[in-house]
Amino acid sequence: MTETVITSEKRKVVIGFDRRFVMIGERINPTGRKLLAAEMAAGDYSRVVADALAQVEAGAQMLDVNAGIPLADEPKILADCIKLVQETVDVPLSIDSSIVEALEAGLAVYKGKALVNSVTGEEERLERVLPLIKKYNAAVVAISNDETGISEDPDVRYAVAKKIVERAADFGIPREDVVVDPLVMPVGAINDAGARLMYLLRRLQGELKVNTTCGASNFSFGLPNRRGLNAAFLPMMIGAGMTSAIMNPLHNEDIQAILGADVVMGHDPNCMSWIRKFREPAPEGATPNPEGGGGRREREGRRRARG
Amino acid sequence: MTETVITSEKRKVVIGFDRRFVMIGERINPTGRKLLAAEMAAGDYSRVVADALAQVEAGAQMLDVNAGIPLADEPKILADCIKLVQETVDVPLSIDSSIVEALEAGLAVYKGKALVNSVTGEEERLERVLPLIKKYNAAVVAISNDETGISEDPDVRYAVAKKIVERAADFGIPREDVVVDPLVMPVGAINDAGARLMYLLRRLQGELKVNTTCGASNFSFGLPNRRGLNAAFLPMMIGAGMTSAIMNPLHNEDIQAILGADVVMGHDPNCMSWIRKFREPAPEGATPNPEGGGGRREREGRRRARG
Repeated sequence: MTETVITSEKRKVVIGFDRRFVMIGERINPTGRKLLAAEMAAGDYSRVVADALAQVEAGAQMLDVNAGIPLADEPKILADCIKLVQETVDVPLSIDSSIVEALEAGLAVYKGKALVNSVTGEEERLERVLPLIKKYNAAVVAISNDETGISEDPDVRYAVAKKIVERAADFGIPREDVVVDPLVMPVGAINDAGARLMYLLRRLQGELKVNTTCGASNFSFGLPNRRGLNAAFLPMMIGAGMTSAIMNPLHNEDIQAILGADVVMGHDPNCMSWIRKFREPAPEGATPNPEGGGGRREREGRRRARG
Repeated sequence: MTETVITSEKRKVVIGFDRRFVMIGERINPTGRKLLAAEMAAGDYSRVVADALAQVEAGAQMLDVNAGIPLADEPKILADCIKLVQETVDVPLSIDSSIVEALEAGLAVYKGKALVNSVTGEEERLERVLPLIKKYNAAVVAISNDETGISEDPDVRYAVAKKIVERAADFGIPREDVVVDPLVMPVGAINDAGARLMYLLRRLQGELKVNTTCGASNFSFGLPNRRGLNAAFLPMMIGAGMTSAIMNPLHNEDIQAILGADVVMGHDPNCMSWIRKFREPAPEGATPNPEGGGGRREREGRRRARG
């Protein structure tokens, strides 16, 4: 079983096939958030602190930190935010940038073993990012595209992921420190995006034996009732082998879907997390009924009695 | 691809690997419904009619009809209900009883090719039920338990399902007319009930190549927020190969989970069913849009007019 260990000073998170699904909070990201971008560019990180607290409170086991603001000093801002977030919450972080200098600035101040988000299969990226991963003893998100773009063929994406794992090994980075992002495409545009992704996830877990992550919400892009669709998508991906996601933990539907998937996978011992989250307070004056109500389950009981 | 065809006089439903998931409404069942049981025993079927209409309106493609009332004349009541439901709605039916005489009485009046619910792997049941299936050219739900009870070992359940498929073949009943119920156990009692079931479903689809059905709600028995858990369970089972379920179509969470799973599986072309169900109505005072817009009713009307 492949286990990816990510740590902060005080906490350890393990992403693994036989583990609870790991939710990585996506909120600390100025992309598409104009107010946050302006504040961060001006050195005001109050919203970053608030987002960190709210996401951990909501159940995120890790947080992704991104400081991608056009024309801003991204390495400095990212490093500032990493330091601040580590002072605010004790969960491990994912250091997220498309700029290698920013990744290095973040890694230089990070306390623990970080997840670096990300490297692609492009030669130039591999050559620049993988040495950093090795130097700082980090883990890395490997995005399954390369110079030829994003293939619609899951077998091509598998081959790109395999190449990244092999290149990482050349740099002395073990397989368990490569977390593959198979790339979630919008099903509104590509009708078999979900089916192809499940197929790819089964190969990534069964053959390449790597952990996986993704930006889940992209799947429902452009469709109505996106949260409802995400709530079906996430459990199905978990059933196919996905072991973590970069997502919004403030969406209750997603949290419920993931906690439910943990129960179905058998990764929530005695369903204790589910029960703790959803246990209703006993109604006043209610008589306990150990037999429960009627319906189909009674039929099952009847069947069993017959057997 | 294995396709199980069930028909009424006017409609055909196909259960299959590359098809939309088939929801079989479970409500017409007096088990655990004292009022319904008393009414049915007294020959008052008004609630049966109402349940039939409500379930089809809610999206059930088939209805299960059960008349299991202790000490009542089950064959007569079941036959009466089958006739009445077929006069009320035009979806195909599942004829549900543990009494062979009742199954035969239902089959004798049924118009079309019914699904018979059910036969187990018990020798005495196989010998009595399978000839009926052949005689009436029906399909049958095969429950994967036998004289030894319900095994917790999914490989034993697989073997029982395989035995039923083989025995059915001996009677001239093809594989596609056997829909296996792998038996859903409550995860609150058996922590890996979900994981074992996914494993079994993959074998049933990949190796035995049969369609499957189940009483889904049993999974969450005894736990809080049952609907939330069912909404994660159903998509994961569909992802593992389950092709139909006997369920309550009046639970919106279940419907949403199943429509979402159809999208993820690539079985909802251009996401049209999802969009039709969840598209938001145009805000009041909005300019009418001849290309669509509007609420559900308007779109449905337009489609019919075109058809």
